[in-house]
Amino acid sequence: MIIKLNCDMGESFAAWQMGDDDAVMPHIDMANIACGFHAGGPAIMAQTIQLALQHQVEIGAHPAYPDLAGFGRRTLHFPPAELKAILHYQIGAMRALCNQAGADLSYVKPHGALYNDMQRDQELFELVCRVVAEQNQMYPEQPSLYLLTLATANNSIQQRIAEQTQVTLCFEAFADRRYEADGTLRSRQYSDAVLTDRNAILAQARAFANGEPIIASDGSQLQLVPQTLCVHGDNAESIATVVAIRQALNGV
Amino acid sequence: MIIKLNCDMGESFAAWQMGDDDAVMPHIDMANIACGFHAGGPAIMAQTIQLALQHQVEIGAHPAYPDLAGFGRRTLHFPPAELKAILHYQIGAMRALCNQAGADLSYVKPHGALYNDMQRDQELFELVCRVVAEQNQMYPEQPSLYLLTLATANNSIQQRIAEQTQVTLCFEAFADRRYEADGTLRSRQYSDAVLTDRNAILAQARAFANGEPIIASDGSQLQLVPQTLCVHGDNAESIATVVAIRQALNGV
Amino acid sequence: MIIKLNCDMGESFAAWQMGDDDAVMPHIDMANIACGFHAGGPAIMAQTIQLALQHQVEIGAHPAYPDLAGFGRRTLHFPPAELKAILHYQIGAMRALCNQAGADLSYVKPHGALYNDMQRDQELFELVCRVVAEQNQMYPEQPSLYLLTLATANNSIQQRIAEQTQVTLCFEAFADRRYEADGTLRSRQYSDAVLTDRNAILAQARAFANGEPIIASDGSQLQLVPQTLCVHGDNAESIATVVAIRQALNGV
Amino acid sequence: MIIKLNCDMGESFAAWQMGDDDAVMPHIDMANIACGFHAGGPAIMAQTIQLALQHQVEIGAHPAYPDLAGFGRRTLHFPPAELKAILHYQIGAMRALCNQAGADLSYVKPHGALYNDMQRDQELFELVCRVVAEQNQMYPEQPSLYLLTLATANNSIQQRIAEQTQVTLCFEAFADRRYEADGTLRSRQYSDAVLTDRNAILAQARAFANGEPIIASDGSQLQLVPQTLCVHGDNAESIATVVAIRQALNGV
Repeated sequence: MIIKLNCDMGESFAAWQMGDDDAVMPHIDMANIACGFHAGGPAIMAQTIQLALQHQVEIGAHPAYPDLAGFGRRTLHFPPAELKAILHYQIGAMRALCNQAGADLSYVKPHGALYNDMQRDQELFELVCRVVAEQNQMYPEQPSLYLLTLATANNSIQQRIAEQTQVTLCFEAFADRRYEADGTLRSRQYSDAVLTDRNAILAQARAFANGEPIIASDGSQLQLVPQTLCVHGDNAESIATVVAIRQALNGV
Repeated sequence: MIIKLNCDMGESFAAWQMGDDDAVMPHIDMANIACGFHAGGPAIMAQTIQLALQHQVEIGAHPAYPDLAGFGRRTLHFPPAELKAILHYQIGAMRALCNQAGADLSYVKPHGALYNDMQRDQELFELVCRVVAEQNQMYPEQPSLYLLTLATANNSIQQRIAEQTQVTLCFEAFADRRYEADGTLRSRQYSDAVLTDRNAILAQARAFANGEPIIASDGSQLQLVPQTLCVHGDNAESIATVVAIRQALNGV
Repeated sequence: MIIKLNCDMGESFAAWQMGDDDAVMPHIDMANIACGFHAGGPAIMAQTIQLALQHQVEIGAHPAYPDLAGFGRRTLHFPPAELKAILHYQIGAMRALCNQAGADLSYVKPHGALYNDMQRDQELFELVCRVVAEQNQMYPEQPSLYLLTLATANNSIQQRIAEQTQVTLCFEAFADRRYEADGTLRSRQYSDAVLTDRNAILAQARAFANGEPIIASDGSQLQLVPQTLCVHGDNAESIATVVAIRQALNGV
Repeated sequence: MIIKLNCDMGESFAAWQMGDDDAVMPHIDMANIACGFHAGGPAIMAQTIQLALQHQVEIGAHPAYPDLAGFGRRTLHFPPAELKAILHYQIGAMRALCNQAGADLSYVKPHGALYNDMQRDQELFELVCRVVAEQNQMYPEQPSLYLLTLATANNSIQQRIAEQTQVTLCFEAFADRRYEADGTLRSRQYSDAVLTDRNAILAQARAFANGEPIIASDGSQLQLVPQTLCVHGDNAESIATVVAIRQALNGV
């Protein structure tokens, strides 16, 4: 199995730049492109789609709660029908911009608080799955969208919901995050939540790629089976890490 | 020929209501639904689509310059590629919400300053046509979108552009606006720009429906051939006018 | 004691109107004017200040969490220093617009979720008091601002915090809301949370004005000592209720 | 005369950073702080004020047209009373945040399109002067605000308006911009509009500081008498230029 690298992209806004998409795009496989609700916007989306096309990178919609001021990192509560409309709106907008560029939209990865919330909240996870399934029913002549979610020690509940809604899941892991023994991400309130040593990051990436267990925060072995690793294009250092991960995986 | 009534809908925003969509929807044929850039938003769009479905009203995307603060009434300049992205984004979002509700998206009517600008600016009109044509090429299995624009005394330039881009036009007129002899709308800076007498409005509506000329501001006869009349659901009085126009047209 | 009527004002936004400020302003004593963060904006604030001046109505700043999309009704969490900046920004903007019109800014009434949150959260209440106190220290030559808050059966904690921070409180009650026995407002999740019978509303208003107890939701007597009643200018019916309350209070 | 360095600051927004304020603040004399309408916001303003205080840098309000999406670089038209409200709002908010931090607000420098528009439009320049004058009348116990504007070959019209409105002007020049013979800035549509050679920039800065003429685009000598130079903290290179200008001026 080839493990893919996915990265949040197109998160600039108006006059404000975020991340160096040009520098990181050549090294990744999947671009999670912001849909204008936490970052981005039509023009940035169109540019990022072009950049992805140029580097043959798969394109995913990266929808979020409507919250530019909070960058989609705050939980906002909506009635289910309203949240579904919020998601269809963003995915529909992204699909149109992809199609206009001659590109396919391949997957959906919820952003920020929405992503975290759906890991904890089965009803929310099911709602997101239903939106993806509806999109697939709405556009049967287009490639079926899959849903990117977090690989944990036991994804059986998510897998069951996905089967019921006929959605394909793709599990992601983080090379630079420490995990708890149950496969959840160690909270950022702990100082060791993020791996900063590049060798440690590369070791964890290699373990994921080789199908080997990693070491959880309590020292126990943790077996995750991700299909993709989430990497970051924020700055020169994180991009150098992406390049190093890519080289390490090529050598696997 | 049956002349249709079209009306701007879904222009509430967040906690703020605008227009009485529930009251006017039963009396119209075509709902121009705001796409979130000058008004509306995902939840309001979804509700308005449901309301249109319930009353078997055709649904149009009503895209605008991105300008909530100015209600889309201010001309904003964008590079062509950016403006195309702005339009595809809104139409794509609207299409997704229509399709999710089992509804078709039927047409596009640009809003406010964008609508006015494209009447004067051939390059802009062509850009809008290209966007509509691209949407039709992108989703060939869906009904072909047509473009709503202003009926004037001579629409030959717009018709030529539409033919070149393979877009069907639908011309609209206003029962409650006074026209100049050349078929343009009399500027609102003149006190007689808007017809306020209901009998005068009904007479103008009947003339349009019967294919008869109307009287322009200089007293001359003006022959327009609209396929639809734009009506307004802003308040009880304007809705009463819509009902009266509907009755008058039924009697034609 | 004359009990005053306060009302939320200036809550229109851009092209969207909310409430009929012109109709209700003649009948109230205190205008809680939105500061642009949940509603309103510079031009609406300036107009509303003029209207208040014309009717000799006291002007209060009505600051909110920054949340136009949620109309300030959603709790948003900010670090204390950030929330203080958010409040000083709004109060400072309102003060400048008042002073430019030759008007005094008289008080502060937090809006929506911020108002509700400070009733439950002593630290938040203290933070708001500190902001008001700082404003008073910053502009000693201007009238001292007081803070509008909810009258409950026991306001001793709020009074202690206000004394410590040297802020004057003004307690408000609602003529059209049912109260729990402890003086808190009955939750809107109960169908009888809002009084809809005008005679019941007037009776409760008169009781407040006469210093008499009202009947709580459990039938017990509840003694509140408000200095002002919060009224609503949303529509013709609520404005008629305001006029009736005013007449009832004049007759007390 | 000591020529001062002024710099636009506090132009980050929400999650998006712009400029390196920490790096440039130690080297400047005057911080033009965004007021939330084109960039910034309450928390960023408060932080930037603290940073300015720490480095004993004068604080100016940097108000703009309300246009986050356009970074205040688009001309927007408002009725005069509305534009005055827009300016008083921003200056009032900034004043409150300064005063809360124990800092003085010293001056006003309009931003972007508003700055450019007031150079060409006398009525607009007078409106801005009146706002500054009103602020000074409203808060007589605080330092009188002055207005930062562009030094040209002939500022007599602006000086007359400033005298009539009793506003003190402070003229700025650009060390890194080429000037036309009449003292206006060479349009950015020309490739030589911006000086990129650091020696040329330093030579122009020294000329301004020494009261000597600079060389205009047509080769003629141009005498400007600025009291401050506008510098940029956008990135490492521009900050290095600021440091070099500072050193060059110290050596004058």
